[in-house]
This record gives sequence, C-alpha cells and structure tokens, in this order.
Amino acid sequence: MRNALVAALLLSSGVALADEGQWQPYQMPMIADKLKQRGIDIPAKQLADLTRYPMNAVVGLGYCTASFVSPKGLVVTNHHCAYRAIQYNTKPAHNYLANGFLAQTLAEEVSAGPNERLYVTEAVTDVTKHITAKLPQQPLARYQAIEAQKKALVKQCESDENYRCSVRSFHSGLEYYLIKQLIIRDVRLVYAPPESVGGYGGDIDNFEFPRHSGDFTFLRAYVGKNGKPAAYHQDNVPYQPASHLKVNADGVKAGDGVFVAGYPGSTSRYRLTSELKFASDWLYPVLADRYQRQIDTLEAMGANSSDIKIKYAGMLAGNANRMKKLNGLLDGFRSTDIAGIKQQREDDFTRHIDRQGANSKAMMQTLERLITERQAQYQTRFYFNNAQSGALLDAAKQLYRLAKEQQKPDAEREAGYQQRDLRMFAAKLTRLNRSFDAEVDRTLWQQDIEAYRDQSHRVEVLDKLLLENGTQPLAERLRGMYSLTGLMDTDTRLAWMQKTPGEFERSADPFIRLAVALYPENIAQEQEDKTLSGELSLARPEYMAAVIDYYKANNWPVYPDANGTLRITYGMVDGYQSRDALYKQPFTKLEGIAAKHTGQAPFNAPQKVLSAIASNDTQGHKVEDLYGDHRGWLCRLFSCQDKPDAFNSVPVNFLSSVDTTGGNSGSPVFNGQGELVGLNFDSTYEAITKDWFFNPEITRAVHVDIRYILWMMDKVDNAHNLLAELEVVRH
Amino acid sequence: MRNALVAALLLSSGVALADEGQWQPYQMPMIADKLKQRGIDIPAKQLADLTRYPMNAVVGLGYCTASFVSPKGLVVTNHHCAYRAIQYNTKPAHNYLANGFLAQTLAEEVSAGPNERLYVTEAVTDVTKHITAKLPQQPLARYQAIEAQKKALVKQCESDENYRCSVRSFHSGLEYYLIKQLIIRDVRLVYAPPESVGGYGGDIDNFEFPRHSGDFTFLRAYVGKNGKPAAYHQDNVPYQPASHLKVNADGVKAGDGVFVAGYPGSTSRYRLTSELKFASDWLYPVLADRYQRQIDTLEAMGANSSDIKIKYAGMLAGNANRMKKLNGLLDGFRSTDIAGIKQQREDDFTRHIDRQGANSKAMMQTLERLITERQAQYQTRFYFNNAQSGALLDAAKQLYRLAKEQQKPDAEREAGYQQRDLRMFAAKLTRLNRSFDAEVDRTLWQQDIEAYRDQSHRVEVLDKLLLENGTQPLAERLRGMYSLTGLMDTDTRLAWMQKTPGEFERSADPFIRLAVALYPENIAQEQEDKTLSGELSLARPEYMAAVIDYYKANNWPVYPDANGTLRITYGMVDGYQSRDALYKQPFTKLEGIAAKHTGQAPFNAPQKVLSAIASNDTQGHKVEDLYGDHRGWLCRLFSCQDKPDAFNSVPVNFLSSVDTTGGNSGSPVFNGQGELVGLNFDSTYEAITKDWFFNPEITRAVHVDIRYILWMMDKVDNAHNLLAELEVVRH
Repeated sequence: MRNALVAALLLSSGVALADEGQWQPYQMPMIADKLKQRGIDIPAKQLADLTRYPMNAVVGLGYCTASFVSPKGLVVTNHHCAYRAIQYNTKPAHNYLANGFLAQTLAEEVSAGPNERLYVTEAVTDVTKHITAKLPQQPLARYQAIEAQKKALVKQCESDENYRCSVRSFHSGLEYYLIKQLIIRDVRLVYAPPESVGGYGGDIDNFEFPRHSGDFTFLRAYVGKNGKPAAYHQDNVPYQPASHLKVNADGVKAGDGVFVAGYPGSTSRYRLTSELKFASDWLYPVLADRYQRQIDTLEAMGANSSDIKIKYAGMLAGNANRMKKLNGLLDGFRSTDIAGIKQQREDDFTRHIDRQGANSKAMMQTLERLITERQAQYQTRFYFNNAQSGALLDAAKQLYRLAKEQQKPDAEREAGYQQRDLRMFAAKLTRLNRSFDAEVDRTLWQQDIEAYRDQSHRVEVLDKLLLENGTQPLAERLRGMYSLTGLMDTDTRLAWMQKTPGEFERSADPFIRLAVALYPENIAQEQEDKTLSGELSLARPEYMAAVIDYYKANNWPVYPDANGTLRITYGMVDGYQSRDALYKQPFTKLEGIAAKHTGQAPFNAPQKVLSAIASNDTQGHKVEDLYGDHRGWLCRLFSCQDKPDAFNSVPVNFLSSVDTTGGNSGSPVFNGQGELVGLNFDSTYEAITKDWFFNPEITRAVHVDIRYILWMMDKVDNAHNLLAELEVVRH
Repeated sequence: MRNALVAALLLSSGVALADEGQWQPYQMPMIADKLKQRGIDIPAKQLADLTRYPMNAVVGLGYCTASFVSPKGLVVTNHHCAYRAIQYNTKPAHNYLANGFLAQTLAEEVSAGPNERLYVTEAVTDVTKHITAKLPQQPLARYQAIEAQKKALVKQCESDENYRCSVRSFHSGLEYYLIKQLIIRDVRLVYAPPESVGGYGGDIDNFEFPRHSGDFTFLRAYVGKNGKPAAYHQDNVPYQPASHLKVNADGVKAGDGVFVAGYPGSTSRYRLTSELKFASDWLYPVLADRYQRQIDTLEAMGANSSDIKIKYAGMLAGNANRMKKLNGLLDGFRSTDIAGIKQQREDDFTRHIDRQGANSKAMMQTLERLITERQAQYQTRFYFNNAQSGALLDAAKQLYRLAKEQQKPDAEREAGYQQRDLRMFAAKLTRLNRSFDAEVDRTLWQQDIEAYRDQSHRVEVLDKLLLENGTQPLAERLRGMYSLTGLMDTDTRLAWMQKTPGEFERSADPFIRLAVALYPENIAQEQEDKTLSGELSLARPEYMAAVIDYYKANNWPVYPDANGTLRITYGMVDGYQSRDALYKQPFTKLEGIAAKHTGQAPFNAPQKVLSAIASNDTQGHKVEDLYGDHRGWLCRLFSCQDKPDAFNSVPVNFLSSVDTTGGNSGSPVFNGQGELVGLNFDSTYEAITKDWFFNPEITRAVHVDIRYILWMMDKVDNAHNLLAELEVVRH
C-alpha cells in the first residue's frame, strides 16, 4: 500500500525527471536548454569538446576521477581515491595516513607507487558500424567476432605505449565507442590531510548526510624531460596539461546550477524488471550473507593479530562499503516499489511498441528467455565459483590460463592475457603478499567450499579433489595444501608466468594441480557464457533501440547506462526531504565537525582542525550567506532573525541533485561557469537505489566544498605553496 | 571548545529566552503582552481564573494531566496515561491493549480500576505567611514546625472526603500554596486505540522526532446520583463538569501560538552549578548503571517466563524510559556546557548582589556547605538504601513504621501514615503481587546487597544480618527468607496493618525481623535529613529571593520550578535545527505512519489504520495547507511546486516551543482562542536537559494533533457516538 502510494507519486512526475542523466559529452548540445535553465552558462558545445576547457582537465585514475588544477600538473581527487598512494608511503617513521602529508617543494613530492596511473581521455570515436557491420548470426561466432574486432581496434589505437585504448559497448551493444587515453605513469603524492579529516566519520557516516569529510588529496603528474609520459624517475618533470581548472573560492549557494564530469562505473537503469527482481530477491541477499560472513571472520581473526588486521584492512573496508550499499539497495527496494514502477513502464513500453506495429512479444520473450537462462546459470554456478576463491588458487588458475593463452598468436588471446596486459598481470602477482595471510585465506576459502558442499549443484572434479579426498577434516587437508605450495613466494609466482602448459600439468604444487584439474570445467562454463553473450548481443540492442524510441516519444532523457567512460551530469545545489518531517539542508559547516567530535575514531578530528575552528579565523573563507536569496525565508523557517551568523560559516560538504555513481569519486564539481567548486565523493543512503532507478526527490550526491579545502590549506596546513599554484577566482 | 562556542551562542541570546516558563496561572496577567505577541488572544485574566473556561476543564490524574471535553464528563488524556486502566480491563478474552477498546454506549464503559482518580484543582491559596510566620531557628524544630503547619492546613481543608488538599513549597520554600482538589473516584474507560497506535514507535521513538504516536485515550468521570463524587457503582451517573473544552477541528499551522495547561512534576532550573555537576558527574551515571543492570536481569529472566515478563513489564518500561532520559541528560551535558553557562550566570549573580550591598558570600557559602553535606549524605547512603530494595522488605518496613506511627495522635504522624493515607496504603499492599515474583525480587535485591557489600560505607546491623550471617551463599540465605515469610500473601500483609509494634518485634517472619532491626538506623538517617532540611528551609528561600531580584533586574522570566502543581506554558508551533544541516519540521503526516510500518512491534501499525491511509479518505480532516502563509517559501525549499499535496495530509504529531516536563503528559494543547488542538505527550531528545536549563533553540514538546484523533475516531474506529458528544468548532 505504501509502495503503491509512492509509485503513484513517482509516476505522476515521470515527465519531469529532473536532473537525471549521465550524459556522454557529445550529447551536451542536445540538452543545452536544460543546462541553461539550471544556470549553467558555459556553452554546451564547449563541454562536448574533449580537447577544450574544462573537459581536457578531467582525468581518470582507473577507479576514480580527478582533475588538473595547475599548469604544473597538480591534480586534485578524493582522499579515498588516493588512499593506496598514501598507504604506500606510510612507514612507521612517518604515518601519513594518521598525520597527513604536505610537500612544501617539488623535491619533497613522493611517488604514489609504481602502479598509479592518470588517464587523460583524448578521443572518443563511434565505431559501431566497424564492429557490427558484418557479424555472423551463430551466437558463439558472433561473440568471438565482436571480441576480435574490438581487439583489432585497440591494437591499432595503442600504437604508442603512452596510450591505453578500449572499445566500450553503450546501450548494451547498440553502440560501440573507441576510447583513447593518454597514460601518465609517474604520479606523485603532494598533499593529503590526515585520515581523520579525509575520512572523518568513517564507515558510520559512509553514504550518510549530514557529512563532514575533508575527502580530498593533491597529486601531481610527472613526465620525462621530453614531455612524454615515463615511468617514475627522479629527473622527471611536472606535466603541463593542456588546461587546468579555475578554482572559484566563492563556491556555490543553495539553488545554484552545478555539473560534474567523471567516470561513473556501472548502472542498470534500462534493465528489465525481472533483472531487478533477481537482484533484490536473490543476488543481493546472497551476496550480503557472504560479505557479512567474511566481515565476521576477518574481525575475529584480526582481533588477535595486528598483522592480519593490516593485511585485510582493505578487504574489510571494501566489504563494509559493499554491505552498506547492499543494505541501502534492499532498504530502498522495501521503501519504494521500484519493481512496480519499472513493471508499469515496461507494460507501457510494450503497449507503445505494439501500437507501432512491431512485434514486441517475440522480442520481449526472447530477451526474457535469455535473461532467465543467464540467471539460472549464475545461480547454479555461484557456489562453485566461490569455492575457487582462495587467493593462491586464483593465482594458479590465472597463471595456467596465461600459459594456455600464450600458445596462441597475441591477437587471438583472451582479453587480459595479451602482451599489453602482462605488466599489470605481474604487478598483481607481486602485490598478492601484501594482503595475504595463509590461515585467513584458508579460512575464507574453506567457508566458501563448505557453502558449495551444502548446496545441490555438483561439479565432479571439485567434489573429488576437495570433498572426497582423504579422511582428514577439510581444514587439515587445506592446511596441507598451503604447507606444500611454492606459490606463497612472489618470485616463484612470477616465474610461473614463463612456463608452458606441460610444465603446469607435470607440477606437484597442490594449487597448480587443482587449477589444472578445474580448467576444463571452467573453460566449458566460459564457452557457455560466451554463447549466451552472443545471443544477447543480438537481443539486447534490438530491445534498447525500441526503448530509446519509446523514451524519445515520451520526451524522456536518453543516455546510456554508466560503463566507466567519461560522462557529464548536471543538477543544482539542493537539500532534500529524507523522511516525513525530516529535511536535510544542502550545506554542512565547520561547527558541525566540532559537534561530531568525540575523540574516538572515526570522529576524532585532529586538534589542529578543532583549534582552527575554535579560533574562528575564517578570514577569506567565511561565507557571508550560504543560502543567498533564500536567506529570507530560511530565516523564517529556522528562526535565525536574531542570529546573523546562523548561516555564515565555512561550508564543509554540500549536496546537489547531480546523477552519479561509483567511479565518480573525485570528480570535479563545477559551477555554471565551469569553475571548480567542489569534489564529488559520495551519495546519500536514500539515493543508493539510483543504480536501478533515478528518483529525483531523494537522489543527492555529496561533495566536499572547495571552500573547506581552501580553508584547510590556508588556516590549518599552511599549504601556501599550493594555494599560490592554483588559479583562484572569485565571483 | 565546542562547548565554549555553544555557551557563547546561548548567552548571547540570554535576554530573549523565548517561551521559557512553567507559569502559575495567577501569573498570566503579568505576561499578558508576551501571550498577545504569540497570538494567544484569550484574555490573560481569564487564564488566571481556575473557576473559568478553560482552566476549570483541566484535571490531574496524579501522574498525568487530562481535560474535560464534553458536558457529560468525557475526559481525554494520553494512551500512556491511561495504560493502567486499559491493562486492568485486558483479559485473555478481550485484549484491549492489543486491539483497543470502544464503548458505543454509556453502559459499555468499564471501570478504569478502583484506584484511578481525577483531580480537579478548585483553589490555590497563598499560605506562605501562615507557614513561615513564627518558625523556630533550630533546624529540626523548624522542619517539624513546617510539617505540622502543613498537616494542620491540609486537615482543615479536607473537611470533606471528596477533597484532597496539599501544601506545596514554591521557589524552595520561599512561598507555600494550599491546593484544594475535588477527587472523582469513579473513572471509566471509554475509548482507547490499540497500543500499536497509542504507543506506535515504542521505546525506539520515545523522546524522538519525527514521531507518529496516537497517544490518546478517552475516559469518563462518574459521580453518585446526588452529583457528589462516589466510589464505582453501576448506578453512578456521568459527572457534569463546570465546563468542557471546545475542540478545534482545524487545528493549528506552523507559527501559530499555543499554550498548554497541566501538572509538570519537577525541574531544577534554579539549582546551583554544584548541584548540576553532582547530577551529571555522579548521580546520573550511577543511576544509569543500576537501571541498566536491572534491565539486563529482567530481560534475561523474562526471556524464559511469560509470567515474569508480564509482571515486570511495567518496571522494564519504566527503566527503559529512565535510561533514555538519563542518556539524553548525559548526552545533552556533553554537547552543551550547561554547567559552564550556569556558572557564568551564578558569577554574574554574585557580582550583582554584591553591588546591591548584600553579603552574597556568606549566603552562598552557607548554601554550598549544606548542599555539599546533602550530597555527601546521599553518596554515603546510596548503596545502603538500595540494599533495602526488595519489595517484601519494603512492605515490612512500611508496615512496621505504620505500627509505630499509629502510636501517635493522627496529626503528629509522619505524612503517608496518617488516617487519610490508609486507603492508598492498603491499595499498594494489595496490588504488590501483580508485579512480584519471588526469584526476580530476590535477584534484584541481591544485586543491590552485593553493590552495598562492595563499597566502603558500612552499616553494622545490615552487615551482621545479611553479610555475616551463616556460611551459606548469600543467594541461598535470601531464598530461605522468601520461603519462610508470610508476606507473599496479600491478606497477611493487610492484617499487619492492624498490629502493634510489639507484635512486630516478637514476629519470626524474616522480613519483619529485618525491618525491625533496620528501623533505628533508618530513623536516625531520617532525623539527619530533617535537620538538614530545616537548615535548607532557611538558606534556600534566602538565596531564591536574591535570585528573583536578580532575574527581575535582568527582565528575565521568573516562575517557580515545577512541583506537580497546575501550570501554564505558552509557545508556538515550530520545527527546529536538530544538528548541523538537519532540520525537523513541526508536523508529521499520516503517510509517515505507513512509511515507518515494518510489521514488527513497535512499528506494527494495525491493518485498519494502514487501509484507511491507503484509501486516502481524509474528507473532513485533510488539511489544505499545514504550513499556512509559510507554504510559499517552504515550497521553494522543498521543491514542492509540482506537488500540490506535498503538505496536505492529516497531521499526526506536531512540535511546539512550549515548556513542559514529566507530568505534562496528557495536557491539553490550546490554540490562541483556548480551543483544544492537541495533547502533549513527549519532548525531543535534545530537549531532555531542559529540566536543568531551557535552551529555546532546541527545546520542543511533542503533541498528538487533534486532527489525527478526530480522523481515527471518524475513519478508523467509527467512534461517532463520541464525536457527537464533542463540541467541535472550526475557524
């Protein structure tokens, strides 16, 4: 009943889907009117041009977004995006995680680590015709033909080791784009606040608002003396980006239009209702169970060992984040009947295309059948795949696969095992030990094996090798494998990269033997997957083309689901109604940091920050009136007549209605003139379901306010060397 | 630092202490201007007159407040105030707690129980001069003289068994008033919603907002056929009150002025900083520890026994409520430096009276010395007093005391043991078994004995009898006492009311023996207390007189601390800023009930309520615009332009800035014309510290909206018989 009410409410405003859209830059001119309406004055055409300001200053980190903010290659992103770089440089003698880091000169800047990269998207080319022109109908052949085309395009594009190229599918294979990115390989750490600023509130505040995180860090891009990308070398020089973002020290006010550019990872907004139901009713609860079990195990084992605690801190944090996201999804599905809303749209859609004379029935039936098949496959294999989860088994499987693939010409090898992939392959093998403990790995793996044992889908080879092999308890047999393997040694793992399949097949290493034994079953599964993907590569684009027609007929926004490629989203600075009688204002303030401070992590603000807040020295940063023209009526609401300072403070975080998802972390938030006013870093809890359905009333992204960053640099950390480097403007 | 900021903020608005004040009705004309400013148009003089509308319709329940709402003695109060009456009538065959109760005719109305009373305050007379005219200086004699005067005044006033009189001290003994109340002894249950409406949200929502409680119940006053109060009899007839409240079905809007009349129990706003510190640093934490221990024990023992669960449900609920209140106090003291604020005021005060030429130093030193002495006494005796906590020991002690007191003429007996008290004394003894289980009583008592054992203050007789007596473990020895006593039998307990001290002293009953043995120590303590009270009865009034002068000089409101007597407080319908960026709106709506519904208690709204909400039938109750003139700017804030219904619903609960405390539960909330618009039932969590310090920015009381009550009666429960009885008016 509640759901029915909500559904009615949402559908009634269906046409006005406010700021929804993770737009491809080339689409900007198509929504120029809407941008204008929101007060985004920078020409849409300029935003569409990746070679012009500001888009040529937006860079990817692979898993996050960042931007150039000085002519000397200074880059700003989130603290949590630079976490690995800070951790890499943290030593007992200088705990940069705990205390923060500031290089006062270029010479003091330290390498962010050998695997850190900055990617500058230089070109995005529509290659749909090239890929789909002459595809065979037979599913597996079709899949293979698509992959071969993609590889060929990538190979041609990556003429130079300084470029990374990829072909991405948009609208589930309706379109394909070739993305060309310059790779900067020497990335250095410049300035990071303490974790108690950058991650203030920790897991408790994650996905929540009111929020008070100083989630920012500065890096710098370096290149060789010739101006070309190069690996870290002390003689390298700062990179000179084509442009860098202007920083607007006056920031934004409530109601201002903003836009965000970045690399959102993945959304599922065009998926069928049956796919949402599979996720909400089976997949998410099952995943949540497994993550929670792993969290419990890691916490119990970490309680007695600081070594384990450190090694698995990353996995624990990742699982905690995934759990909160899953809970947010499940709570969101409970409070809003998104399946009902989607089903209603789907029904409207089929009626619509029926009216167009198309045979919607056959198309929908085919798609539903393929989806059902894929879900059944997923369910069947879920426990079997998890039962291969040990880190050493995983390494052994990948190494054997590499040996097999290396028998083929490079162009025919599976993606991930080509020549271009080997450096990252080795890097991954190298860093395995940093987050590995044999007993923890064995325990987690054993739990997955036991979960496999307790369900009905049997795979003979696995049963034989792990469940029926010997009379000892499973734990003892697994421990035996860890004691006999050579794979715990990094050099040994790396050495296996050079070996032939025959050497693997003759090996006595228990993990290598298991990997070899499981290979036929895993390859058979993969062939099934590819065949099904081949079928879907016909069915999904057909469906998407019809959906797009339908959306256009309704004047609804049409943009592809997120796929890790560069997108632009726009919206306005705005609070939201969180629940009945509970309204969240768009800005948090310095005073809120002090109010949350308990002295216990994650609410242990550093004394220097508390002192700076207490000193009330906000000269040059204090905002006369955060709420602009809205002040008058806000004051009536909040009784601030007698308190002239009620809304005057340094803003810390703010909310806007832009449309983001994971991968948008670190994305620059621009004002209407295309000047930097904040960094995106999170979403609110109510907004988590936006991956499936964008509800404009409750969907808000959370940003670090540029004024807090500038205040921290000026009043707390004396980062005047960097302040001088920025191009600071004011209204 | 945080505290310093807050303190500065609060002190800066010291003069504008908005709606603070639990005013004696006679004071109304003194604040007539302020009432007028708030839009309270009913003449202040009328409010001061207890014999006129609306004050003559306000009644006490002893622990709560209620009001007459029909010419036939219909009374409305909170569900939680009528809980005992509903519980009394709940039988396996008809679970009125779970399902609610509605009498469709007078004949169907059931007795609320033999001990329920309604008290109508008919006169409040200043008797200060009478009490304080000729008091001796010697402390104990002074204390006794005051008590004797009070008893004499009460005796004279209670000429008729239909009246209850009491003399209450105001401003810590600066003034005394004689209160005369008509007692109505036949109270019947008329209409109660299910507990899942009346207590929706339970302990979780207790002291919280947004809130959605239907915390209301209707009772009816009955009298004998001659119109005089009488005990329950089937021939009794509805009481005809001098007046009854008009019910305004249009309710209030944001910003409207409101006032509340009722019986607030106790506040400590004029206490010294040292007293606040004693509470925050020692008393509250120590009490919280004991309550939590009791909660843990009761939950553990109740888990295996539904009998125990039922018997101790009341104690458990009470402790949960006390814990939340204590935590609110301790959190509030952490977040706002109330001690600092009070100390600053105290310092200002002493400077002020020094300037007046008074010798503040001597006065303050005397008061501080007496307070320190009382605190030391309290700390010393805390564990000893708790070690006498068993219900049977308590009964035995009171019975022996009664026997001793009955040796004296009635007028000389201790209050509580006089002839006028014996009916209630017997009633308490009678109902002991309803909330008693020997093993639970023994366990809780033993924990208190062990806590006494583990601290340093020794009382020889208790040590000898409980700790050093025998070799068996304490638990076994205590169990022996329960197996040997006759006090578990109600008739036996009642029979002891007739016995002489000698009979007690010769008794072999282990609890009687222990009570007799402890008597000298307890009486000695009492004498010490009385002596100290005698000293304070000189020192406190002197201090209060000076404080009042100081407040008046500052134009600050002067009203006595709450003491369970009839008071009026005024304010406006208003939301509040709960924390940085989090604003709570003043009204919750029907839809919020459905949104909170999980199906699990305490969020298990009845299906009939959910269906009524879903049916959207709010005809005659729907509010066109809850936010009145504020709608325009609220809509800008909440983006409700496209949602004409965003603020149109039946309001469920609302907030106002009136100044209430425990005892104000069930109090009528009036609009500016003196018409009923709601029932007070709670405060927000941030407001809990108001017992010590009224902070107008965060202090809000929570009310049930009359429109929700009327909607429930009309659309859910078909209580049209009662609706017809009400005098419903509209704007």
